[in-house]
Amino acid sequence: MKIKLIAIGKIKSDHFLTAASDYTQRLSHYMPVEIFAARDERHALNKINAGDHLIACDKEGAEYSSEELSEFLDNHRGRGTKRLVFFIGGAAGIGEPIRKRANELLSFSRMTFPHELAQVILLEQIYRACTILKGEPYHK
Amino acid sequence: MKIKLIAIGKIKSDHFLTAASDYTQRLSHYMPVEIFAARDERHALNKINAGDHLIACDKEGAEYSSEELSEFLDNHRGRGTKRLVFFIGGAAGIGEPIRKRANELLSFSRMTFPHELAQVILLEQIYRACTILKGEPYHK
Repeated sequence: MKIKLIAIGKIKSDHFLTAASDYTQRLSHYMPVEIFAARDERHALNKINAGDHLIACDKEGAEYSSEELSEFLDNHRGRGTKRLVFFIGGAAGIGEPIRKRANELLSFSRMTFPHELAQVILLEQIYRACTILKGEPYHK
Repeated sequence: MKIKLIAIGKIKSDHFLTAASDYTQRLSHYMPVEIFAARDERHALNKINAGDHLIACDKEGAEYSSEELSEFLDNHRGRGTKRLVFFIGGAAGIGEPIRKRANELLSFSRMTFPHELAQVILLEQIYRACTILKGEPYHK
């Protein structure tokens, strides 16, 4: 199973870019992960295939614990999902087209985070989920 | 009103250290903020004064939205709280002594974050709360 993270806008701060690269690199030992910076939602939708399972991050979505996220990944692997696409919107939140296309809405928190930090949090949580599934200690 | 953030353990990754310094610096335009890395909970408790209002971060705590956190800060400023102390525990979570001393338990998320990332998230949220209170646009 592959993971794709699509976000509106590039990470500009060097420190968040390094944090994201660090988690992406660690994640690559578990599953292929690709990050794509889209210009806008239309551009993002063009990069989503019909067979992709789309999880849009939205603070109105369902809140998962880290353990529940790991079960979610495991269930998808078990039922043969080819690719999970996570979407992180821009400052304006998530528009109707993405909301309609999304298979799930996932919330990290009731708090609002900047999209750069949200990308780091999501990558960390997917990495954590992989270590939980493997029963491995979390590597700091 | 002053803010103190006490965490168990120093931030070791350069990128999270830079992210934390960046938010601390921005926050300093709104209120004095100090970060203290404690060796353990006993050490942390020694750094908390009787008059401090202690908010321990714990995923079983109450979940605030960013707007609710800003109202929380504003209420404390209004009622003359001298110092708010936020506590972020180590990998083992929060022990009984801190739990008993805490005036509130605050949860960012049902997810578990590494303490370095939790510190960055908390500083970002306090900074965001300050911009909300001032009615200012959020500076990325």
